[in-house]
Formats: sequence, structure tokens, C-alpha cells
Amino acid sequence: MTDQTHSPRHTVIVGGVAGGMSAATRLRRRDEHARITVLEKSGHVSFANCGLPYYIGGVIEGRENLLLQTPASLHERFNLDVHVNTEVTAIDRAAHELTVTDLTTGQQRTIGYDTLVLSPGAAPFIPPVPGIERALALRTVEDTDRIHDAVAGLAPGAPVVVAGGGFIGIEVAENLAHRGLDVTVVEFGPQIMGPLDPEIAGIVERRLVDNGVHVLTGTGVATVEDVTVTLTDGTSRPADLVIAAAGVRPATGFAAEAGLETLAGGALVVDATWRTSDPDIFAVGDAVATPDALTGEPVVVPLAQTANRDGRLVADIISGDDVSLPRTWGTSVMGVFGLQVASTGWTEKRLVAAGVPHQVIATHPASHAGYYPGAAGLSMKLLVGTGDFRGEDLRDRILGAQVVGEEGADKRLDILATAMQSGRRASELLDLELAYAPQFSSAKDPVNMLGYIADNLRTGRTELVTWNQIDELAQDAVLLDVRTPGEFAAGSLPGAVNIPLDELRGRLGEVRELCGEAPVVVFCQVGQRGHVAESVLRGEGLTRVYNLTGGYRTWSDGQRTLR
Amino acid sequence: MTDQTHSPRHTVIVGGVAGGMSAATRLRRRDEHARITVLEKSGHVSFANCGLPYYIGGVIEGRENLLLQTPASLHERFNLDVHVNTEVTAIDRAAHELTVTDLTTGQQRTIGYDTLVLSPGAAPFIPPVPGIERALALRTVEDTDRIHDAVAGLAPGAPVVVAGGGFIGIEVAENLAHRGLDVTVVEFGPQIMGPLDPEIAGIVERRLVDNGVHVLTGTGVATVEDVTVTLTDGTSRPADLVIAAAGVRPATGFAAEAGLETLAGGALVVDATWRTSDPDIFAVGDAVATPDALTGEPVVVPLAQTANRDGRLVADIISGDDVSLPRTWGTSVMGVFGLQVASTGWTEKRLVAAGVPHQVIATHPASHAGYYPGAAGLSMKLLVGTGDFRGEDLRDRILGAQVVGEEGADKRLDILATAMQSGRRASELLDLELAYAPQFSSAKDPVNMLGYIADNLRTGRTELVTWNQIDELAQDAVLLDVRTPGEFAAGSLPGAVNIPLDELRGRLGEVRELCGEAPVVVFCQVGQRGHVAESVLRGEGLTRVYNLTGGYRTWSDGQRTLR
Repeated sequence: MTDQTHSPRHTVIVGGVAGGMSAATRLRRRDEHARITVLEKSGHVSFANCGLPYYIGGVIEGRENLLLQTPASLHERFNLDVHVNTEVTAIDRAAHELTVTDLTTGQQRTIGYDTLVLSPGAAPFIPPVPGIERALALRTVEDTDRIHDAVAGLAPGAPVVVAGGGFIGIEVAENLAHRGLDVTVVEFGPQIMGPLDPEIAGIVERRLVDNGVHVLTGTGVATVEDVTVTLTDGTSRPADLVIAAAGVRPATGFAAEAGLETLAGGALVVDATWRTSDPDIFAVGDAVATPDALTGEPVVVPLAQTANRDGRLVADIISGDDVSLPRTWGTSVMGVFGLQVASTGWTEKRLVAAGVPHQVIATHPASHAGYYPGAAGLSMKLLVGTGDFRGEDLRDRILGAQVVGEEGADKRLDILATAMQSGRRASELLDLELAYAPQFSSAKDPVNMLGYIADNLRTGRTELVTWNQIDELAQDAVLLDVRTPGEFAAGSLPGAVNIPLDELRGRLGEVRELCGEAPVVVFCQVGQRGHVAESVLRGEGLTRVYNLTGGYRTWSDGQRTLR
Repeated sequence: MTDQTHSPRHTVIVGGVAGGMSAATRLRRRDEHARITVLEKSGHVSFANCGLPYYIGGVIEGRENLLLQTPASLHERFNLDVHVNTEVTAIDRAAHELTVTDLTTGQQRTIGYDTLVLSPGAAPFIPPVPGIERALALRTVEDTDRIHDAVAGLAPGAPVVVAGGGFIGIEVAENLAHRGLDVTVVEFGPQIMGPLDPEIAGIVERRLVDNGVHVLTGTGVATVEDVTVTLTDGTSRPADLVIAAAGVRPATGFAAEAGLETLAGGALVVDATWRTSDPDIFAVGDAVATPDALTGEPVVVPLAQTANRDGRLVADIISGDDVSLPRTWGTSVMGVFGLQVASTGWTEKRLVAAGVPHQVIATHPASHAGYYPGAAGLSMKLLVGTGDFRGEDLRDRILGAQVVGEEGADKRLDILATAMQSGRRASELLDLELAYAPQFSSAKDPVNMLGYIADNLRTGRTELVTWNQIDELAQDAVLLDVRTPGEFAAGSLPGAVNIPLDELRGRLGEVRELCGEAPVVVFCQVGQRGHVAESVLRGEGLTRVYNLTGGYRTWSDGQRTLR
């Protein structure tokens, strides 16, 4: 309880959505007599920002569902002084004073503070190309109204270009397709969904294409004209509507001008107590760089759940608690045309780029017991440490995970995220006791399966290769497809030889003849039969035997990104 | 790799379903040249035992879906020697020899072993009442066929009595109701679903009743006659079919006769390496008692996933690995009429009985963001340690959890089980970074909410009371309902006074007058508004303020079991 007998300290919070509102309400619960003011630039506070694309798509009906609170309801419930349409244009740190503009009247005034919490969020990045002012971006309720109205004016099947294939771009693309529009996603990078590894992003891309969305990668919007978008590859597409979804940038101009330390992209730098370079000014949310869980380096992770969490913890610090910044892991999930796309921690490409020693485990188990109706295939990828990095022993450490599927992908990712954040080792996923009934899981849960593979790796009982190593391995290794002849005939790795697993023991002579001194890469559809084949061949004395992790299916998923 | 150059050791595995088959196949992968024999009493191995009720109900169509493997397919894939319809009747431990009977021919023979793995499972307990031989039990595929045939001969709406309200009884009851029968569950104990706490079991009971299943508790089957069941309370029910589902007993007669140590109920006692009192004989699965995660005392936890896991680990031990028994937590989930019922660790009633100092946290968050269609209410209960038990400091330790709801209950339970098994503290659930998008969760996930409450408890910022303490508290405390007048009018705690939360700050005088020196228990529907009210009153200097955990809803759920 802070000093109730003195005049109450004044905390001003800039930004009234996730992080800011969590800080404000927690502060009230901590101190019934604190003076708390919230300033929000847009016309709405505490709105459902993650729901905006779904209102455009008609999944969420009724605009009122987006508006969770009003200044009046927040005053009633939490005794907060909330001002919308109020932009902070300057901070006078010495005077502890903000300059704010009322955006409805244009009037300026100043507001004093004892403590300042910045949660201004991030604004859409608008690529500087001719005609881009015709494009609409999505951040606020007002933006949503604009896109909603624009869509209402379009004929069924009208062409729309979404510039950007990240989370927001894909969510908007799905929702515009739901509205019957002919949607093209244009992504400048080599793959959509940059925060995922390419073979996982390939699954998302296939889902989009299967649902009629066109996906162009490696090209960007060059110009926007009346009803045409010209791309950087010289082609053009009709576009009655253009959505700018090329990422976001921290909305920190006013803070940087006040001399607060920022990174190159504009993110506010905070210490382990969320304090900016000014100890009376805290910052949380999408505008802030927090220490990465693995390296400790500041990274921007624009996620609603961390903003909420951090806003609350900052309120605890302001209330006098000894709290420090939790590590940030970057845990996310997205739904797209019935596919759940979930991820946590580091991706393979980030590990490769940073030089972190690691191993990839891929598998495709069923979401629940195959004999119970409705099971769907999952695609799971686990990144496991295999050595030291910056003086830390990362062997058997869970470094990241990606899970995709129509059912239970979010659950498996959350289990993996919990294990990772709680220090559980990859091989210790094998004896994790999870809830089983046939409609929910398998007696060996997909997460246990990852643990079994990690334990086989840890103990040297399996050696895995990955889909993106096959081209190089194929130079001198035998590729042995142990699936059935029917599966083999429907498609296999170039140059592979087919000996079905159930015939392998009787055809060992053939295998020995094929291999000679060469290594052998065994593979099946998802990796499980491959592992049995690997065990058989090792048991027969072959030493250079490798199993293709994730099997033919992961390899196929990866091909999409190599076009 | 074990000694391949000598004559291979012979491992005999008794029981060919979950634990036994996991041991057999893992042993093969570990040793291509081992001699492995599997003996199964029933006519089928590796069958989908958890799927049997759903075949009866027609949810799983096609009997062949229950049969995952055959002796022939297991020979082909894993080079196993599998014998079905083969009962082990005696173990000659000195001679390392089994006596077995071929149940199709009646012929006896002996089989030698070097290592024996017992995974005989548990058989239904048949209460010794007159006429009980008319009742059908469910364990094997053959049992399933009998029930399936019996159901096919019944008219729509025919009365059926299920004797026993545990997992199998409830699953069978649901499936018989799906087949259009008039089902009554008779449970001798004071509540159905004994492994759950009463207010959680009350939710399951309501779901059954809402779907037309009759539930009788505190009474058992006394006699079974032609088409009538007489109960121990003297009443009788028509019953064209009686299902015996009164629990199971380890099927260990032959093992006990051989002098292997068992507990009173028949469960085989094993050490930390799954060895029975004979070091050449291992045992896993439903017939075995394993150390409880909290007390280390041997408990029988008949779950498919632990049987599978332990069978695999025993194969590793036989292969020479240094592995020891993981703690057993008792993690389970059941589906009943669209409700997911999940549990892990200790219940409140077990903690109370054992004298473990603990605190109950209850809450009812939405399964995903309320503004996105389809969110369902969850009922969550977390048991948190508050002191020492047997020399161990259990403060802030997660001791158990129960989660019930139509969506995402299995996910939240698995997250909590993972956190608990990984040593994460209850208050550390607050900064667990879980995957959020509005169709999957809320920005503050229900698991985070439990962490927030646990942290408020840990730091003394909330004091909770539970539904079953209300009667006693009501003797001298003021019960303050802070919900809206409409909610209050629809039902509240007896004697409660209504001051809506949003009016509380303006009506503090009333509160002070009401309370005088008495304590005040605030409550709302689920606990959240109650906590804000608690903060307001504490901030105003009231010291004896308590929040009813789980609110009016948990209290209501609990009333069902007090009839």
C-alpha cells in the first residue's frame, strides 16, 4: 500500500489497450487511492485489437463486440481518468510534464506526472511507394471501420491485394476471402510467415492456396494505381482494394524526441524493471524491446499476452514490489482456414544464423487416437540444443517449437512452451504425464513422441537428417524408402530405392549390396517406420544409418519454398 | 546393444495391450536379435481398449477400428512371437518357467524365460450380489462384442442400469444413451467420479442429467433379477441390461501365487526400476502400484499413457539402461456429452484426508476471448501448497488441478500438468507465455489467471474462502454479493446483501455499517469482480475481507453434492 496519507502520486499511462490498460487496472487494485490517468490516441480504449480482422471477415458480428470498455465504464469500475482521441506530442522530462493534443478539437494542454508508463504500441509500416496512400492499414477501430466500409462497396470476386504475408496480412487475407473477394498476398521475403521456418510456412501457404488465396513471394508492391498494383518483379495485378500489412514500427517518435533511448527501428530500450533510460518512465508492449530468452539481446515481440503481463507487472513495480522482467519467448498462434499455426522460441533459421548448435526433430502424429473419428494430422518441429552457446550448455535444451494442424496444435505448442519455460529438457518430454482419452490424444501423446525422439538422439540411438540436407546427402548416400510400394509409387525422393519396412529383414543382402561403403538415409512418410528400419539396420551392423526426420512429408512441405 | 554373439536372451511379456506391447516393440528396437514372446489371455493384442465404450455407442464405427495389430502384423513389423488366447496360470520362479493354457484347446504347456515382464492389467470388480452374473462388464474386445450384441437386441428407450459412476461407468452410460437407451447410473459413493472433488463431479452429474441420464448416488445394486435391479436403499429400477462398472482389481492371482509381493488389493509392488520382489520379473500397467508423486506411497493409477510409458522404459532397463520410475501424477481426461473433464495430481479431498496444508483456487474463465464466437465457460480448480508436509516445503507448489468445460479444458489441464511436473510454482503461472489469438485463448490465458490469483495469495493481497466454508462463515460474517441486481435476484447465497461492484465506492458507509466488527465475505459470479471489491475494501482500511473463490458459480456447483 503506497502513501495514502499524502497527496496521491499521479501515474499517467500513454496507450489504453493491452499493456496500458493492464497497468492501469492493476495499479488501481494495488492502490485504491492512487491518481491514475490514461491517454489514448485513438477513439477507443481496451478494444479487441486481435479481433479486428475477424470483424472485417464477418466472423465477429456486431461492432460493439470489439469495444470491451469505455472511459465511463473504466471510471465506474476502476476509478480511472481515461481520455481518448488524446495524443501525446512531447514529454518534458525535467518538468515531469506531457504536452497532449485533443484530436477532436485540436487544443493543446499539459499534464503533469509523477510516474509515466508508455504503452503506445506500434503503427503499421507503410512502404514508401507511389500511390501507397490508396492502401488501407489495420491497427485501430477506425482503421477497421474504413476497411469494413471499403469491402462493403466491392462486388463479389473483386480483386484485393494484401501487401505483406505476416500474421496480420494472413489474417486479413483469410477474412477478405471469407467475404468472397479474390485475394492475393504479396510478400517481399522468400516465404510468408517470416517468424516460421520455411517448411512450416509452406504448409500455411498450401492452406491459403487450397482456399483460393493467391500467394506471391519474393516480390513487393512497386506502385499502387487506380485499380492496379504493379509489383517489383514487373508484373501487375488488378486491385480494387490494397491492404498495407508490411509489418509495424514502434510508435515512439515523441519518446525518442524526449531523449529516451531507442533501438534503430524505434523500439524503446528498457532495463529488467521495464524502466526506460529515464527511471520515472516505464514502457511496455509492442513499442518496447525486451531481452530474448536465449541470448538476452533486446528483441521486439509484439504480442498481446506479453503486453498484458508486462503492464500488470509494471504496476506491481510502481507499487513497490521487487519484480523483474520475465524472459520473452515469442509464443504465438494463428488460425487460417481451419489450420492452427503455433510457434514458440527460436526457429531453425534463427539458430543457424546465430550459430547456435542444435538438432531438428520433425514428426507428423495424429491429433488424437486414429481409431476415434476426426483425428487430424499434426506437423511438429522441435529445436533442441546440442552444445555450448555463449558459455551456456544447451545440450538437450528445448530451444523452440512449431506445431501446425487442424486440431490440438495450440495445445501441443502450449505444452511445449510450458516445458521450455520451466526448464524441462527435450528428452524429459518422454515421461511427461499428459491427459489421455482417445478423443483428445493418443496414449503416447505427440509431445511424448518428441521426447522419445529427443531421448534417442541424446543417447545416440538415432541419427537424424533434415529435409534441407537431402540434396547434399544424395551425392553419395543411398536413399532408402521403407514405405509401401503404393506410397513409393505416389511420389518419393529423387533417386530413392524402395524396400518396405516389413520386408526389410528378408532383404538385408540387397541393402548391403546397394550401400557398399556408402551411408544410407532411411525414410518413411513421417519418420516412425524409418526409425524402426534404422534400428533394424544398426542391429545388423550397419553404422552409417540416418533417419530423415519428419519423413517424406516434411521433405515435401519444404519443397514449396524452394521454387 | 546387448550380447548379440551369444544365444539371445528370452524375454517373455505377459499381456499384449498398452504396457506389454510398448515393452515388446521398444525391446525389439533396442535389440534386433533379442528373443521376445508376448502372451495375451484374450483373443486380441494391441487393441484400442480406451475406444471400447465408443464402439458400443456407435461413435467408432467398424469393429476393425478397435484392432490395431494382429500377431501376424507384429511378427512382420517387429519379429515378435505373439500368442493370443493364452493364459499364464503359474510362474515357477526357480526354474524360470511359466505354465500356460491355450484357452481355445485347453492344452497346457511350459515356456521358459530369462526375463519376465508382467502387464496383465486389471479385471472388472464384480460386486458379490445375487444375480450379478446377469450383468456384463467391459474390458476386452470379447466383452465389447457381448454388450454390443445385447444393445442391438434392446428396444429404443429400454431401461439400462450402469452399476458404478467412475470413468468407465460414465463413458458407457453416455454411449448407451447415444444408442437411445434409458440409462441410470448407480453409484454407491456419495458422488460420481470419485477421482474428482465433489463440486467438479457435480458439473459432470448435471451434464449427464441434462442429457437424460439418471444419476443415483449413495446407493448400490443389491440384487439383479430378470428385468429389475433392486438397490441397497430398497428401491428398484427396471433394467433390460445391467453393466457392471464398479471399478477394477489387478489381475495378479497367478503372480501372487508365485509369491510376488502384492498390496492388499492385489497390486504388484515394484521398486524404482519396475522390478517386483523377484529381480528377474518386471511389472507395469494397471496391475502395479507406483509411488505417488507427492507422498511416494504406492498407488494404483490405471491409465493407458503411464502403462505405455512404463512398458517402454522397462525395455530400456532390460537393455541395460540406468532408468528409474518417473513419479506418477494421475493425469486424466474424459469426454461426456461434449464436456471435457480433466484432472491431475491431488484433489482437495485427498489433501484434506492426508493433512497436507493447502489452498484452493477456483475460477470460471472463458475458453477463448469472449468477443470471438464460440467461447465456452471453463471451471478450473487449482490446489496449492501452503506449508510443510513430511519435511518438504510445499508453499506455492502446484499439488493438483481439475478443469472442466466444453472447449480447451484438456489444453489447460495439460499445461498445468506440465508446469506441475516441471517444478513450476503456482505463482509462476502468471508469467507463463502461452500462445494467444482470440479463437484459442484470451490475452490473459485462464492458466495465467490462476497464476495471478496464486501470486495474490502468496503475497497476501487476497484471502480466499471456499464454497464449503460458507455455511460456517455465515454464522458471523457479512456475505456481500457485488454482482448486478439482476444476477442477485436470480439467486444468491442465503443471507447475502447486494451492493454492485460499480456502486461500492459510493456506498462504503453502508458496508461499514453492515459489517461493524464482523468479517466480510465478498463474492461475484466467478471471483473476478469479488477480487476488485476486496481490493477496494482493503484499500479503505477493512482488514477482515475475504473473496469467495470461484464465486457464486462454484458454490452452486457444490450444492448438488449436498442433497
